[in-house]
Amino acid sequence: MKSVNVGIIGFGTVGTGVYKVLQQFGNINIKKIAVKNIHKKREIENFNSSILTANADEIVTDPDIDIVIEVAGGIDPAFDLLETAIDNGKHIITANKELLAKKGSELFKLAKEKNTVILYEAAVAGGIPIIMPVKTILSANRITKIAAILNGTTNYILTKMAENNLSYEEALKQAQELGYAETDPTGDVEGFDASYKISILSTISFNKKVSIDKIYREGITKITAQDIKSAKELGYRIKLIALGQMLDNGKIDVRVHPMLVAKKHLLAKVDNATNSIMLKGYPVGEIVLTGPGAGAEPTASSVVGDLLVLASELEASDKPLPQSICHHNEIADQIEIGDTYNEYYIAINAGNNPGAIGIIGTICGNNNINISTIMQKGIKEDNTAEIIVITERSKESDVQNALKELLKSDCIKNIDNLLRVMN
Amino acid sequence: MKSVNVGIIGFGTVGTGVYKVLQQFGNINIKKIAVKNIHKKREIENFNSSILTANADEIVTDPDIDIVIEVAGGIDPAFDLLETAIDNGKHIITANKELLAKKGSELFKLAKEKNTVILYEAAVAGGIPIIMPVKTILSANRITKIAAILNGTTNYILTKMAENNLSYEEALKQAQELGYAETDPTGDVEGFDASYKISILSTISFNKKVSIDKIYREGITKITAQDIKSAKELGYRIKLIALGQMLDNGKIDVRVHPMLVAKKHLLAKVDNATNSIMLKGYPVGEIVLTGPGAGAEPTASSVVGDLLVLASELEASDKPLPQSICHHNEIADQIEIGDTYNEYYIAINAGNNPGAIGIIGTICGNNNINISTIMQKGIKEDNTAEIIVITERSKESDVQNALKELLKSDCIKNIDNLLRVMN
Repeated sequence: MKSVNVGIIGFGTVGTGVYKVLQQFGNINIKKIAVKNIHKKREIENFNSSILTANADEIVTDPDIDIVIEVAGGIDPAFDLLETAIDNGKHIITANKELLAKKGSELFKLAKEKNTVILYEAAVAGGIPIIMPVKTILSANRITKIAAILNGTTNYILTKMAENNLSYEEALKQAQELGYAETDPTGDVEGFDASYKISILSTISFNKKVSIDKIYREGITKITAQDIKSAKELGYRIKLIALGQMLDNGKIDVRVHPMLVAKKHLLAKVDNATNSIMLKGYPVGEIVLTGPGAGAEPTASSVVGDLLVLASELEASDKPLPQSICHHNEIADQIEIGDTYNEYYIAINAGNNPGAIGIIGTICGNNNINISTIMQKGIKEDNTAEIIVITERSKESDVQNALKELLKSDCIKNIDNLLRVMN
Repeated sequence: MKSVNVGIIGFGTVGTGVYKVLQQFGNINIKKIAVKNIHKKREIENFNSSILTANADEIVTDPDIDIVIEVAGGIDPAFDLLETAIDNGKHIITANKELLAKKGSELFKLAKEKNTVILYEAAVAGGIPIIMPVKTILSANRITKIAAILNGTTNYILTKMAENNLSYEEALKQAQELGYAETDPTGDVEGFDASYKISILSTISFNKKVSIDKIYREGITKITAQDIKSAKELGYRIKLIALGQMLDNGKIDVRVHPMLVAKKHLLAKVDNATNSIMLKGYPVGEIVLTGPGAGAEPTASSVVGDLLVLASELEASDKPLPQSICHHNEIADQIEIGDTYNEYYIAINAGNNPGAIGIIGTICGNNNINISTIMQKGIKEDNTAEIIVITERSKESDVQNALKELLKSDCIKNIDNLLRVMN
């Protein structure tokens, strides 16, 4: 096998994992690694620190380097570095979902001009094989739906809330103590991370460029212990779901928000930090791929997998294989959240008035919303009642209008939560 | 894209599915289809029956045909036909697990000589992407364990037994009526089908040729309604599991038998005819791939997926890519069932004697078997007791010896079942 020269940008947990796994493959030569601190002690046996550099430009301009692995994250300076690398004819392997979601189009366009490829299995769902399968063995399919748990931190928090009857704040604190959540958890708990990933996965699944700016996004911070409890009683688990759908009219519906997932659904059974992707297409039907969505080792599996495939392609031909190239010529026509159809869970705090249920029923009816389940369990100490409504499939804008009308009514104190439901 | 000429051998449900899906891909030209009955009416729109032939030799010797798709099944005449096709320089795509399991080595050897490839995504787990991912994006991994539900018929039967408290015979009859089981169900219910598939999957996962003759195989016909009930009470589901393990000493443990699978395990949650593969490796960790294991459309997804990838490889280079070639140079050193270690479920029918539990405990202890759970629920009408024992991890030969000793004891009437346990 022909030897391939590689440069790595970023030498944190993931970069170190990639380095260690690559030691097994004799045909891969790591020529340089760009790090922040060249003097930091590295816990790697027989490590030759002379390949370290503090100047990543050395990697992206080195004429001997064939492939640049970027595992640093963030937009700046990753974007400029990869742009220069592609400009210099290098192939790219990256785990950087934020970069691909925000600036992927520019990079893929440049790569096409320069006849190089960008591979990114590690950017979506860590070690789960999904990007390459969609581009290769599943390529006969017209994919119409993706429903996925793509963020381990939020799945961990929601699992602990359900298992131990914790509030969001208590579960977040535990997750932070155990290293599952960062000190500033915004990127995870507000759904940004999942939205980057679903934008990438939807783009390759539907063969149309999905714009991150048009993805509706809602995190898990508003989920209460009461929501988790009510969901359980009704036969559901609450999960942060990244959703991508190709509608019959060719429009695309991509969003990230918590959902009540029916207990029998395989996604409801995916707990802790595990990720899972349900993909529906013709002719394959429904498949579900589950595994570790993050961590040095699973991520290294995907980065090195991309690298080994690319190395063998480069050995067979100078021309990259068609399935390694991303086409983003067509722009997805993404619909607004108001135009989506869903089943809903509505948690309503009502006064202890005889008319509350009647008013809820009337206002829902007036807004084309059929109620499938309604549950009220007694009156609380503050003389209010928690009423849970599950609706049949309804239009989001109708539901939002109904909620506004409900809030105008004297017997309705508050809409405690509105969540969407997956059966 | 360069046009590719294809011949199809077999035009039953799967062949027809493949034909239909291929109509969407302009660069694939189906030149000939070999059928049993050329005059049979085909329910396909605008079908040009002039491409049908009753003589499959016409396909495997046609110099214009680049790729032969074999979806006929069985050894004879499939083996001779594919041998001739490879000899004539054709690439092969096949869904024929029995052929690959029994005669794969000969075909792969010939293909290597002739510089052609054999692809077979559809032969294992229907529409679930597993063969190509193992050979490409997961190729950085040292895979150490596969535990899989690879036969839809038996999973359907076991699911119905559990859901509706049916006997094996009742559930089989329902499965036959609904078309999930064949009139002669032997190939499925005795584990042959699953053993073909695990031999193929173990071979590519461990990079050593696993011999079908050395795979221990046990079907589901001995599972009773009582076993299902006891398993449920102890927190398990019974599944037909195909197991492949790379042991620390480099030996390979491959077998097919029913197992009690702990309810929390993802495989326990896979019901009806669905298939699922748990794969463990370094660095990826554990991934679980779930989906439809049979049927015209899922199978067509995999056959056409192989075809599209191969067509694009042939466009880029005359040399097939390394990951498309199967290496079977090294023969797996497969261990016997007696040398395996497992946890066990033992269903013992004992006389209503004061000493039964004591004798079970003593005999297990004498044979190095630690009991983790023992359950007896009263005395039955015939004055015997059903005693269920779950053991800690023990050697199979020790367990078999203990069972022989137990049967010699006056208080033990019968060993009703011995099953292995996966926690």
